[in-house]
Amino acid sequence: MTEQGKNGWSRKIYLELPIPNETDHVSDQERILRALPKELGEVRCSLQAVRNFYPVCRDADWKVTAFLVWDGRSWELADIEPGDTVKDHYGICADLGSTTLTAELVDMNTGEVLCQKSGFNRQIRFGEDILTRIFYGKDSKEKTEEIRQAAVDSFLELFGKIEQDTGISPKECGALVIAGNTTMIHFLLGLDAFCVFSSPYAVRTLKPDCYRAKELGFPLKGYVYCYPGQANYLGGDILSGMVATELYKREGLSVFLDIGTNGELVIGNRDFLVAGAGAAGPALEGGVVKTGMRAETGAVDRVSIEDGQICLHVLGEGEARGICGSGIVDLLAQMFLNGWLDMRGRLVKEASDHITEKEGELAVCYAPGLYFYQSDIEEFLKTKAAAGTMVEYMMQEVGLTMGDIDRFYVAGAFGTHIDKESGVTVGLYPDISRDRILLSGNTSLLGARRMLLCREEKEQVERLLEKMVYIQFGAVDNFVHLMAAAEAIPHTDYARYPSVVEELKRRGRL
Amino acid sequence: MTEQGKNGWSRKIYLELPIPNETDHVSDQERILRALPKELGEVRCSLQAVRNFYPVCRDADWKVTAFLVWDGRSWELADIEPGDTVKDHYGICADLGSTTLTAELVDMNTGEVLCQKSGFNRQIRFGEDILTRIFYGKDSKEKTEEIRQAAVDSFLELFGKIEQDTGISPKECGALVIAGNTTMIHFLLGLDAFCVFSSPYAVRTLKPDCYRAKELGFPLKGYVYCYPGQANYLGGDILSGMVATELYKREGLSVFLDIGTNGELVIGNRDFLVAGAGAAGPALEGGVVKTGMRAETGAVDRVSIEDGQICLHVLGEGEARGICGSGIVDLLAQMFLNGWLDMRGRLVKEASDHITEKEGELAVCYAPGLYFYQSDIEEFLKTKAAAGTMVEYMMQEVGLTMGDIDRFYVAGAFGTHIDKESGVTVGLYPDISRDRILLSGNTSLLGARRMLLCREEKEQVERLLEKMVYIQFGAVDNFVHLMAAAEAIPHTDYARYPSVVEELKRRGRL
Repeated sequence: MTEQGKNGWSRKIYLELPIPNETDHVSDQERILRALPKELGEVRCSLQAVRNFYPVCRDADWKVTAFLVWDGRSWELADIEPGDTVKDHYGICADLGSTTLTAELVDMNTGEVLCQKSGFNRQIRFGEDILTRIFYGKDSKEKTEEIRQAAVDSFLELFGKIEQDTGISPKECGALVIAGNTTMIHFLLGLDAFCVFSSPYAVRTLKPDCYRAKELGFPLKGYVYCYPGQANYLGGDILSGMVATELYKREGLSVFLDIGTNGELVIGNRDFLVAGAGAAGPALEGGVVKTGMRAETGAVDRVSIEDGQICLHVLGEGEARGICGSGIVDLLAQMFLNGWLDMRGRLVKEASDHITEKEGELAVCYAPGLYFYQSDIEEFLKTKAAAGTMVEYMMQEVGLTMGDIDRFYVAGAFGTHIDKESGVTVGLYPDISRDRILLSGNTSLLGARRMLLCREEKEQVERLLEKMVYIQFGAVDNFVHLMAAAEAIPHTDYARYPSVVEELKRRGRL
Repeated sequence: MTEQGKNGWSRKIYLELPIPNETDHVSDQERILRALPKELGEVRCSLQAVRNFYPVCRDADWKVTAFLVWDGRSWELADIEPGDTVKDHYGICADLGSTTLTAELVDMNTGEVLCQKSGFNRQIRFGEDILTRIFYGKDSKEKTEEIRQAAVDSFLELFGKIEQDTGISPKECGALVIAGNTTMIHFLLGLDAFCVFSSPYAVRTLKPDCYRAKELGFPLKGYVYCYPGQANYLGGDILSGMVATELYKREGLSVFLDIGTNGELVIGNRDFLVAGAGAAGPALEGGVVKTGMRAETGAVDRVSIEDGQICLHVLGEGEARGICGSGIVDLLAQMFLNGWLDMRGRLVKEASDHITEKEGELAVCYAPGLYFYQSDIEEFLKTKAAAGTMVEYMMQEVGLTMGDIDRFYVAGAFGTHIDKESGVTVGLYPDISRDRILLSGNTSLLGARRMLLCREEKEQVERLLEKMVYIQFGAVDNFVHLMAAAEAIPHTDYARYPSVVEELKRRGRL
């Protein structure tokens, strides 16, 4: 067995048990528990395991595999399987997003991801945005239960897809590790989440216990670990990101930015961690942009402007149906560098034939029949300004400048797909050496997988929670002022963006 | 709060929590856990509790009662209740017999029994005797489940009766402590119990974990503790009897005899415990006796013979319908002392007009139209011989005689009702000073109550299990020989029964 196979939230141990006889008639439970390694400590026995001792043990000639699951504190014998099944040992980790759920089937022996599936969160039918869902469930046990069930069903759908692809049922899996924000975890546990968004922001729980999967509606044999959160707006998905990036282990300073509907931010290193969160706005996810869409077939995801012509890449290689986040950032960066957009984010009508008056405002026609409007640009700039200002404000708070930053992590599916150069150009990312900008992808999912494979991370996360200082941006006075300055492209203070200035100069635009 | 209120399997603690505000917005879970006494250790939170934080805490102005339940190792916050409900704190203990279930609602603060209810075990429809039930469920998951459900339904019926009488629902109760024999506990957990009666007698479990009441189908908030057993034929009901009598604490030697369908026996003191079990036969419960019946309305439960006339007491004071265990022992003792029955247990026809030939054998007409037959007597004598021989054999094994015995406990509903003198006369009890014969009643139930009120008894029981040496009588060579000698009244060896000899002499029969 590999080390990984021993460190995760479940274990499988093959046992060749002495066969009961007239002089050795201890109970099956005792016979199995005695055969387990002492290092496991006192092991409990699930009802399912006890019920399966017979006829499994007898039929398998007392050569059986003990399937042990970790409940966060101690081991439980979850089941008994005939013969040696140690090599078939699986767990599931997941990122529970408000829009998208992603789950991975993980080989607990090798740490290998055998299958990854994503799907929409079925709670969307109670509201695209979280607040609508929260109001839907508010003060109603029945509706809170509907929302909970929708979360569970979303998972079950993914598990079904995983089973279709791999033939491995969730029933054969041990643990489920979930990372999600505070609202999503409230929903999953069947809790009214109004507290997350309403003063005094004292939520029901930030550190849920490990519950038996069946108690939460999942068919797995073991327990469900939900990453704990630090505050109402700083949830388990961010803590999971910490475990994924391990920024808390390094001497060098890191900035961790997760931009989605909300923006969450952590700055720190092995000595300190400061965290904050704020509304980033749905613009980055294509929410309020008129032709915005998710990164799926038909979405423009790459844009460049060459010789006054817009060149596009469309997901699925077909006809463009709209534009997703990375396309938007490319489009704005390219328009800015080509003088179609000024520093204040205003479309320059005379700069290109693509820019026309449309429905009472200026708009750029980026694809046949598809327009990106002045008002869309403003939405986007507010969002990027919010994210940028969070970083700026917090850097000030801890007395640091961008020059002190060793690594700038951009988390979230969104961050992953945005072109680094475009991100810097529009002022979404700081203008630092590009290799220090790390587009880390779904760190929430990655951290969930790390946890699944190493149960000791639980204590690590609890230490991080104690260490982490949380700043609530809403309470900050000069935030609005800072944000206004950050709405320019790339920023009112050009000095912060030397490489962008250089590029503008190269193009003869400065 | 009384000491008892702190020592049991659940606790209630009234809390006046700080009200969340802008500067104090820890989660409800954390707020409550922080307010609990440190001595409780790390406390888990049930899903039900977390779901009830809101609106209970807010509506109760953060003055709430924490309902804590013990899972055998640590505390769990099972629920939160508005206001101070510490005085309303209940638990349930039960004796799970193959024929009868008895449950008690206990005030966890005072230890008082608020209500006791008994009812038939609904498993009876799968067979009056245990073996028939075992064969019914053998190798069938579905039928094993039917048997399990019948056990649960039997409990729910009692809980319903308790609620009717007291207005206290099991949903308001914390723990459930159950004492039952190995088969009954197997059935309750949904286990095939064939192993209990078949070689090599290695059962599924002798020491089940504490399971959440809901997992076993009970509506209580806490956990179910089932007394562990020592062997297939020496179950949790006997261990519970140890806790009830505390014989393991005394210097003086005790014999503990539980006679029902089976006979279980423990001999020991604070230094050693030897236990054994054997088939006693259903004669004592009126099973195979032709006009035998349970101790209910219409049963003859007391018999005396005065001036050649049979005087009866009938339960319910109405007409006699049959005879129960205590009536049988009285009847035989009285007939023996009056010369109607000889030492070999043969009816002496000429001794009384009540003795007549009936259906090809001798029989005594003990009530109008009701006969006790020669064959009934033989059944009874086999049973009493089995019990007596167990005691005799085990005394020999440990090298002791009756003179060494300080206390002779007779457990079980049956033992309780048998007249001490009659019991000695027929040789069911040893001929020792009557105040050393303790008719202890339902020690299984009493031990369950003690456990409920003192969770530390769990460790005590586990130490007893380790200490207890189990002897299997089936394997004993001279058992049959000893038993034949014990079939006489009171015994082939009259010297063992000096007080009976004296009485016979007084009556001029010796």
